[in-house]
Amino acid sequence: VTSAIAPVRWEHDRLVLLDQRLLPAQELERVYGRWEDVADAIRTLAVRGAPAIGVAAAFGVVLAARTSTAMTFGALAADLDVAFKGLAGTRPTAVNLFWALDRMRRALESLTDRPLDEVRARLLKEAQAILDEDVAANRALGEHGAALVPGRARILTHCNAGALATAGYGTALGVVRSAHTQGKVAWLWVDETRPVMQGSRLTAWECVRDGIPHRLIADVAAASLMARGEVDLVVTGADRIAANGDTANKIGTYALAVLARHHGVPFYIAAPYSTIDPTLPSGAHIPIEERDPGEVRRVGDRPTAPEGSPVYNPAFDVTPATLISAIITERGVVRPPYRFSEGG
Amino acid sequence: VTSAIAPVRWEHDRLVLLDQRLLPAQELERVYGRWEDVADAIRTLAVRGAPAIGVAAAFGVVLAARTSTAMTFGALAADLDVAFKGLAGTRPTAVNLFWALDRMRRALESLTDRPLDEVRARLLKEAQAILDEDVAANRALGEHGAALVPGRARILTHCNAGALATAGYGTALGVVRSAHTQGKVAWLWVDETRPVMQGSRLTAWECVRDGIPHRLIADVAAASLMARGEVDLVVTGADRIAANGDTANKIGTYALAVLARHHGVPFYIAAPYSTIDPTLPSGAHIPIEERDPGEVRRVGDRPTAPEGSPVYNPAFDVTPATLISAIITERGVVRPPYRFSEGG
Repeated sequence: VTSAIAPVRWEHDRLVLLDQRLLPAQELERVYGRWEDVADAIRTLAVRGAPAIGVAAAFGVVLAARTSTAMTFGALAADLDVAFKGLAGTRPTAVNLFWALDRMRRALESLTDRPLDEVRARLLKEAQAILDEDVAANRALGEHGAALVPGRARILTHCNAGALATAGYGTALGVVRSAHTQGKVAWLWVDETRPVMQGSRLTAWECVRDGIPHRLIADVAAASLMARGEVDLVVTGADRIAANGDTANKIGTYALAVLARHHGVPFYIAAPYSTIDPTLPSGAHIPIEERDPGEVRRVGDRPTAPEGSPVYNPAFDVTPATLISAIITERGVVRPPYRFSEGG
Repeated sequence: VTSAIAPVRWEHDRLVLLDQRLLPAQELERVYGRWEDVADAIRTLAVRGAPAIGVAAAFGVVLAARTSTAMTFGALAADLDVAFKGLAGTRPTAVNLFWALDRMRRALESLTDRPLDEVRARLLKEAQAILDEDVAANRALGEHGAALVPGRARILTHCNAGALATAGYGTALGVVRSAHTQGKVAWLWVDETRPVMQGSRLTAWECVRDGIPHRLIADVAAASLMARGEVDLVVTGADRIAANGDTANKIGTYALAVLARHHGVPFYIAAPYSTIDPTLPSGAHIPIEERDPGEVRRVGDRPTAPEGSPVYNPAFDVTPATLISAIITERGVVRPPYRFSEGG
């Protein structure tokens, strides 16, 4: 299965994003010419998924360089500094965002005092490389992960770690795609992933589009499936992996890891190496974003709770490394104990 | 805290139900004069909650007796037989429904060949007794359960086992109400309870109405709260309890029980004795209702998944007795091992 879904693209000197807030009802692409609008798209989840927001932010820097009226390298760098900070301030948890911005900043610094046209061209090349490498990493980790999947597997995933969450193909869903190509997937259990419903809205949409057999469940139904032996493995993506393997991912991931352990089901994380943050010794140091209470009080514009009810709405949780059977990256499958270092 | 919420009432020779499908946006009472409409109200969740559907079904039998044009006891019994079967066929899991209908049937049989006016009056009296006894049972089990609650407790509940799920006051939420009256509740964690959202729509509504401090969360957030030590106990209702203590309740209850065990948090079931089905040796024998895929594919009329995605939508799961710290009934607190017998 090769996925033609390209949620983040550079076309005619503009960034094109598939607006993920409208899926599955509507497939609408938006065209971005200003970095401020890209930052807003990241903040409001028009584009989401750790690798995808890294790629989008990199192109945000490209747009900032192109819209800057600076005439000197110093003035351009000052303008870009504003963009770097604005893009970095959109979402706190996924490290790929900071990784991609760091890479763009290093590219910029390597071009000090070069002609501005060359700087702009090289920044575009760097963003395009980040995108291309992400797709390649996903395909590689998909192959590595598929080797862990038994025949006729019933796989459970959470949230969307698919083509939509990346530059294409997907991480957890990349593993599923590769295993499906090898004829090993009976079906994928897709959980809804409240409150933003990336499972039912996005992962199910990818499955329908690419012909991956799947069954949708409410998040709360996963445990009884495991109790009945109907889940052979769980695989999810990641937003940040600490040096010891503790992994932040979409809220609800930790519950699945505990449930998987209780039922003897393997629990895998699939993510590109850019998701690893070796500067953090453990998951306790990963900042967890809290989002708008409205995400829980409403679905779309339909109220599902009293407006007067206080809400606690963390977007991520941390799964301790001890509950993770293996971490699948483009470099291969890593088993515990995990010890990720800055040297890679 | 005494709750004035009376979701099932007999008034002016009619059954009055608060339509729970419309909460929290709208508080609408519907008046029922025909048993067939009561059956439909149970099937479509206008009234829900194991004790509440038992009470509603009992009044359905009363309405069937009143609308019957039978002139002899035999003809009336034949008409009522149709109503008994129709009401029993609405929902399969909650045993209180069958318990209440059995009780109405025994009342009918004790009146064989009595004048039909007397039969009708006595059936009404029996239904009213079922309702009154349910409220009394809830208040008693609320007191028993409150004794298990420590001071400044942060309690997690699932679904709605409140006044709305019963004839009034509530089972799990009855425990919370009693503990709150004693000043022991810091706050109640209310989870949404996808797909029908009885937590956010109904339990949060009861909390707002009765001034019970609460915080709403997505179902998937419970695990990380437990990991951070922010849940002191879990208490839920039940739809059917087998002789060995295995308990069917709203889908998602089992996951909370596994998570509670993993984190060393006490997990309690609160239910009236009418929820116990001593004829079933274990939870493996409890029939689990599967409901319309549309409940998962949509919220209200808003699509949240592709129409082409297959759905698995069980309404209940079974929590094994080994994960239940205690079962709270109106007769007191029962600890494992559970051995419920027909004699009570």
